[in-house]
Amino acid sequence: MRAAHMDGAGPNDTIVPVILAGGQGTRLWPMSRAARPKQFLSLDGAMSLFQQTLKRVADPARYGAPIVITHHDYRFLVAEQAQEIGINPAAILLEPMARNTAPAITAATLYAQKENPGAVLHILPSDHALATEPGYFAALETARRAAENGALVTFGVTPTAPETGYGYIEIGAERTKGVNDVARFVEKPDSETAQHMLDAGTYVWNSGMFVFEANTFLEEVAALAPEVLAGAKAAIAQGAVDLDFFRLDAKAFEAAPSISVDYAIFEKSSSVAVVPVSFDWSDLGSWDAVWKTGAQDAKGNVGAKNVLFSDSNGSLVLSEKAHVVLDGLDGVVLVASEDAIYAGRLDRAQNVGNIVKQLKSDAKTAPLTQTHTTDYRPWGGYTSVLMGERFQVKRLFVKPGKKLSLQRHHHRSEHWIVVSGTAEVTIDGKMRMVTENESVYLPVGCEHRLGNPGKILLELIEVQTGSYLGEDDIVRIEDAFGRT
Amino acid sequence: MRAAHMDGAGPNDTIVPVILAGGQGTRLWPMSRAARPKQFLSLDGAMSLFQQTLKRVADPARYGAPIVITHHDYRFLVAEQAQEIGINPAAILLEPMARNTAPAITAATLYAQKENPGAVLHILPSDHALATEPGYFAALETARRAAENGALVTFGVTPTAPETGYGYIEIGAERTKGVNDVARFVEKPDSETAQHMLDAGTYVWNSGMFVFEANTFLEEVAALAPEVLAGAKAAIAQGAVDLDFFRLDAKAFEAAPSISVDYAIFEKSSSVAVVPVSFDWSDLGSWDAVWKTGAQDAKGNVGAKNVLFSDSNGSLVLSEKAHVVLDGLDGVVLVASEDAIYAGRLDRAQNVGNIVKQLKSDAKTAPLTQTHTTDYRPWGGYTSVLMGERFQVKRLFVKPGKKLSLQRHHHRSEHWIVVSGTAEVTIDGKMRMVTENESVYLPVGCEHRLGNPGKILLELIEVQTGSYLGEDDIVRIEDAFGRT
Repeated sequence: MRAAHMDGAGPNDTIVPVILAGGQGTRLWPMSRAARPKQFLSLDGAMSLFQQTLKRVADPARYGAPIVITHHDYRFLVAEQAQEIGINPAAILLEPMARNTAPAITAATLYAQKENPGAVLHILPSDHALATEPGYFAALETARRAAENGALVTFGVTPTAPETGYGYIEIGAERTKGVNDVARFVEKPDSETAQHMLDAGTYVWNSGMFVFEANTFLEEVAALAPEVLAGAKAAIAQGAVDLDFFRLDAKAFEAAPSISVDYAIFEKSSSVAVVPVSFDWSDLGSWDAVWKTGAQDAKGNVGAKNVLFSDSNGSLVLSEKAHVVLDGLDGVVLVASEDAIYAGRLDRAQNVGNIVKQLKSDAKTAPLTQTHTTDYRPWGGYTSVLMGERFQVKRLFVKPGKKLSLQRHHHRSEHWIVVSGTAEVTIDGKMRMVTENESVYLPVGCEHRLGNPGKILLELIEVQTGSYLGEDDIVRIEDAFGRT
Repeated sequence: MRAAHMDGAGPNDTIVPVILAGGQGTRLWPMSRAARPKQFLSLDGAMSLFQQTLKRVADPARYGAPIVITHHDYRFLVAEQAQEIGINPAAILLEPMARNTAPAITAATLYAQKENPGAVLHILPSDHALATEPGYFAALETARRAAENGALVTFGVTPTAPETGYGYIEIGAERTKGVNDVARFVEKPDSETAQHMLDAGTYVWNSGMFVFEANTFLEEVAALAPEVLAGAKAAIAQGAVDLDFFRLDAKAFEAAPSISVDYAIFEKSSSVAVVPVSFDWSDLGSWDAVWKTGAQDAKGNVGAKNVLFSDSNGSLVLSEKAHVVLDGLDGVVLVASEDAIYAGRLDRAQNVGNIVKQLKSDAKTAPLTQTHTTDYRPWGGYTSVLMGERFQVKRLFVKPGKKLSLQRHHHRSEHWIVVSGTAEVTIDGKMRMVTENESVYLPVGCEHRLGNPGKILLELIEVQTGSYLGEDDIVRIEDAFGRT
């Protein structure tokens, strides 16, 4: 590829996608939570936003294998969601802590440059909604040509409404067909300013998607944000391969200033160009945005089959499990997860962030902002089904070929009843197979391990009994996922 | 007591309470459902409305043991809720089908008259909210004296708002202190008429509570609704004692016209008198009424500790399990059971009845109007915890000393794990004790029985596996509750 580039880049050169998957947005609570934020959720019951992003860069004629950069806590979510749709990232870089987009993109660019110094990169947030028609791939080609001519290209979406939740870009003179100078960046405006910019016709929404050559970008970072470059460089140099992941060095990465790539580079660089586009796009930054991008019925309501709208208009209802009736309410959002329900007005959906802060500040409600009732693990996951005073019931699912760690609990015994598939159970060194409708008992203190040796998902019901049932009563003796 | 009455009734005579507990109201959905309607629910986490009614008539200085009349389907709910608060009804009469209040009250009066021909009866709906202060028992004494002088007494509650959901009574001339003639009955009014009646000061709400002598009432039924009397008489005469219940004869009872006691008797009889009262009372006929009687905070919101009101006013939130945030919504009701959520406007809470009809008409949603996730049985009950494709998890609770039927399933095997208490388990004639943290397996087709021989509640987790898991796959071989 390098050779092709040296010969003058042609349309057959592939672009390296860099997917940003470390965000921890709170404004789609209760669906989005710290342990599983927006990008890993499926809002329409199909692929998650992260998976949709992976699919968007899956055509090998256009793109190379993606580099994903994510927070350490989300590494298994990234690996599993990619695997689920059959995509194999070139690398999964792990941020040891959140440092905003400038250090993350710089680190990913450095990583890509090692493989291919002249690579053209496409930076994609993984928590946006985007329709590739009309004109998405044509715009990408335009951006790539501009990038090959030394531009840092950003995509600017033609506004369709006076949105106050987006940053804007004022378009300057046309450089080449479809590529314009940037006159200026505009912070999230008030509604009057937003309306003015919409009317003016010379402003676009800042989409957060970029295309550039690795070298060009890194030169700009060296000039405009040298501390970011230094931190990212050291984090890569001192980083380590860990299973399928590349772990950025924590001390080095933390030394990089926490700053956005817009603020550190794009708003300052003279190399920035904008490619105006008009495909459907949303940052899904609030329930209001989700409602706008949803499939609205004749009355402007968005909801799945488990929702009954009765004399209601312009509302959004999402429910994981319970059937919902919305009766005589307009412009309302109601989102029901298994353990929390949010109901509010769509026109103040931005307030969800404050609500989450408020819930976090109370020890009793803080868990509702952290975890879901279903927790995904490298080997599968579990749903907390029932919590009693001295017992707990979980539904465990183990993927074919996967094993949990060899472990021991000090305070609880466990009963496992296999309801689907076959389990390989090892208790104090003795292994046996447990098949559908069989059960096994694990006394307090025994060394045990659960595996799925089969070809189909193993599902089992776990009944724990004991005086203390916290997740932290676990001694890992051996683990395939490096968690001992 | 009859003798005392013949000698002139004194204040030491006790009144026989007749509690109407057969109602099937739908307007408090999703809390209220066909299998467990309003009167058996606790709206404030303490006693159910039925239990509150039982407690109100529990003073032996005032009242004899209550007669409860209920629908056949609710017999175990009635028996258990009475037992739970240590009250032993004189009789539990079972309506084989709903025939409205006239046949039910007539049958209960006939039953009471057999024991005590001159008995003074107090008829009480069991699904209303009522504060006994101020003046409840004083009004009861006034009513009793009027009843002993041949009146059919109804209580009329001084209105505090122009309610359109209640029937009204126009008060006539005072007969004796605290007892007035009825000028006329007024059907549920429109809001203009309601305001007019409130302003006039001569109208009261028809509370549905009555006091009369059995003989007086039955004479009026004979004169005004002879078919009701004939049906009720035959239903009693051909009725049968069944365990702790008295089962009215179905064919006879069905022959009685389905008609309300107001329409059949009180609106027509010249013996009717009204005792105006001013204690707090509500028929809890809608979520709006529940909000009005609830403990409102400074912003007029009613909700338990699992609710966060944010910039919301005058709203009601009830949730069985999930934490609820109501954000920027005023005058709203949100009620969340485990499997259904209703959110609407308080000022159109009457519409819930229509919603339930709509849900009933669709086979997919009909079960949401019928049963709760927790089902109460004579021996205890169960909560459906998790439903899989070929498995189901239930939490069973068995009361001390109770036994389930000896039974067999054709299509499912069961695993029981005891998490609290001790179980007596009989499998194919062989009995064993299973204690906390032990489990037992019941293969398809085995004859089995579960009992709680201990002094504390037995709780167990049941995991069913099989190709068909419906409740109707049960062959009862022997049953302590007459269900074979």
